[in-house]
Amino acid sequence: MPVPYLTFLTDFGDTAPATCRGVIWSILPEARINDLTHGSRQFGIRDGAFLLWSSVPYQPVGVHLAVVDPGVGTERRPIALHTRRGDHLVGPDNGLLMPAAERLGGVTAAHILDNRALWRADAVSSTFHGRDIFAPVAAHLAGGTPIAEVGTPIDPADLVPLAFPEARVTGSSLHTSVLFIDAFGNCRLAGQPEDLAALRGHLEPGDAFSVRIGDARQRVPWQTTFGAVKTGDLLLYDDADYAGLGIGVNQGSAAERLGLTHDTLVEIEPA
Amino acid sequence: MPVPYLTFLTDFGDTAPATCRGVIWSILPEARINDLTHGSRQFGIRDGAFLLWSSVPYQPVGVHLAVVDPGVGTERRPIALHTRRGDHLVGPDNGLLMPAAERLGGVTAAHILDNRALWRADAVSSTFHGRDIFAPVAAHLAGGTPIAEVGTPIDPADLVPLAFPEARVTGSSLHTSVLFIDAFGNCRLAGQPEDLAALRGHLEPGDAFSVRIGDARQRVPWQTTFGAVKTGDLLLYDDADYAGLGIGVNQGSAAERLGLTHDTLVEIEPA
Amino acid sequence: MPVPYLTFLTDFGDTAPATCRGVIWSILPEARINDLTHGSRQFGIRDGAFLLWSSVPYQPVGVHLAVVDPGVGTERRPIALHTRRGDHLVGPDNGLLMPAAERLGGVTAAHILDNRALWRADAVSSTFHGRDIFAPVAAHLAGGTPIAEVGTPIDPADLVPLAFPEARVTGSSLHTSVLFIDAFGNCRLAGQPEDLAALRGHLEPGDAFSVRIGDARQRVPWQTTFGAVKTGDLLLYDDADYAGLGIGVNQGSAAERLGLTHDTLVEIEPA
Repeated sequence: MPVPYLTFLTDFGDTAPATCRGVIWSILPEARINDLTHGSRQFGIRDGAFLLWSSVPYQPVGVHLAVVDPGVGTERRPIALHTRRGDHLVGPDNGLLMPAAERLGGVTAAHILDNRALWRADAVSSTFHGRDIFAPVAAHLAGGTPIAEVGTPIDPADLVPLAFPEARVTGSSLHTSVLFIDAFGNCRLAGQPEDLAALRGHLEPGDAFSVRIGDARQRVPWQTTFGAVKTGDLLLYDDADYAGLGIGVNQGSAAERLGLTHDTLVEIEPA
Repeated sequence: MPVPYLTFLTDFGDTAPATCRGVIWSILPEARINDLTHGSRQFGIRDGAFLLWSSVPYQPVGVHLAVVDPGVGTERRPIALHTRRGDHLVGPDNGLLMPAAERLGGVTAAHILDNRALWRADAVSSTFHGRDIFAPVAAHLAGGTPIAEVGTPIDPADLVPLAFPEARVTGSSLHTSVLFIDAFGNCRLAGQPEDLAALRGHLEPGDAFSVRIGDARQRVPWQTTFGAVKTGDLLLYDDADYAGLGIGVNQGSAAERLGLTHDTLVEIEPA
Repeated sequence: MPVPYLTFLTDFGDTAPATCRGVIWSILPEARINDLTHGSRQFGIRDGAFLLWSSVPYQPVGVHLAVVDPGVGTERRPIALHTRRGDHLVGPDNGLLMPAAERLGGVTAAHILDNRALWRADAVSSTFHGRDIFAPVAAHLAGGTPIAEVGTPIDPADLVPLAFPEARVTGSSLHTSVLFIDAFGNCRLAGQPEDLAALRGHLEPGDAFSVRIGDARQRVPWQTTFGAVKTGDLLLYDDADYAGLGIGVNQGSAAERLGLTHDTLVEIEPA
């Protein structure tokens, strides 16, 4: 018998994640639960979507429960998705699950969680659907309940979409923006290392770029490791954690150094 | 064979919780451990008691290990309790376990942990009873050791009590106070939504209340979801996480907005 | 069948630890993973080494995976060690694993992780060896793969060493320094309670010492429990968490009170 496997991501604090795990283990004592993070920026749907997207390819096939849900208790729908890889995703229909679903091969079935028989048996609150709806349904799916039983099927095309910002090339410049800032201030930019390579026809360690943020320009090398630049120096690199173009500081914070926040525009050209 | 189930709550930092888990798994390799939180406010017995109380009803029957223990190494007693629901609680006799025990049906047996055969085999420290006494005894209880073997029985009436502050009605006002502030600044107030309903004979979304803190008065609506008020606006609500009356800000911190700390007095009347 | 047991310590943020756990559970679904901490000071090899050293004696025999790795992607070697107690340690060859290995009886075999058949199957990144090399190799070792298969054997004498600072006695003074500061500001000093005892021929609760830091002197008692001094008062004590001499404040931060940072010199003599 394989071990039923769940991942769990929220922006919850205090004992709320543990309470949800208790609900899951009450239903499915043998479940393995991998807490992806509960430090996702509060109410930050895009950040949660990005973190979920970043981690699911490295997770066993299973049920991925994610709750960043500023609209809890309002009309946004609770949903479960099935993906081509064979995973289930459970959470609010606010875009949170969509990039991860795409990365797992795309949505093959979508259902609204309106079968109350799978919710928590007691009264269901209007502010803690993580505990009362999402966690119990995720446990049932992990235990083998078919997705068709969680509730009304819906057309995947009707799900609330969420797209990450994209980079574009204009002349000799890559126009990108800050997609995500990690716990240490490294910034994942929209776009891929290949976009930089396209600007100059090749991309070798030490290649220099001019990075413009607002009116300021910085000369920053492309490198393959942080250790290739001096402590405190900037580098552009292939961000393996987040599958794309990164800008960082060796043993420091690029966000702080460059004053970067979400969606700050960054223009990069060969120097 | 059911999986032996433990929950674990402390105010420990660094590797201390993991060291205790290592002790538990050394004794009982098959144990499931649910870390309720290790971010309980340091030395805050009431906060720890509140968080434990808030989560245990949603946990499977098991052993609940909790250590917020400013008196470690002094004369406060290490104890284990058995509850009517069938759980065991393990921790210091400083009130920490009492509200949770009450919520699990009340204490049916109480023992001092003075059977050193169940403590960690090496020398026992005077500053880390979590590792040396509480964790190993919890593991033994989870593994099936009868509570009678952990040590001397005591009269539950002799346990150190801990009561949460209560709300009271005077004329048309609810006199309450801040019982707990969660990680996001939502405040759980003493009392229940029913207390507000009693003030005006009913309680419907949108009903307005006047909230007095010190000399300041705010008009605050009762709502069932955060999303029913604008981002940044206050609401009174049924706090599902913490089973009682809450005051919060949609996507913000009520504690910061209103200058609330533990035990701040709050007076509420219909507006 | 025993449960394969791993511990896991990093300075990673966000979802990176969970991604590594996903890699481990993809290879070894039945593994038990005890996260020692992922809050080790970033790039702080000595802090990581200290925390690992502090916790491993209390862990079941298993695979201890630790990654604090400012040199990731540079020439530093990825290694696995076997210890006399029967554990495996996996991580970078930068000293991180050495104190723990010593505490587990010493290194009996050391191998470079150059058998790519045990790495993650996809392309290996140059910035996330935790996910791509260390986690999968640790999972294979936990699953029973002999250490000889992870790669080329090396002479343990060629491993990068790491030594903690030591205390020394000059005349009637103990010259020590700050080895580690815990999450609450308690400071673990180089040396042992026995070193203090040697200064005056005995060591009893209440014995007074003069503690000099820079030009400032404080009178500080030796005590066996925090509760033996008033809230806010200093004490010297036997730090059970970290197996050595500690200086702390009852319900406060000694680091903040005394302005202590890593390697601050501290001179102690009988008062």
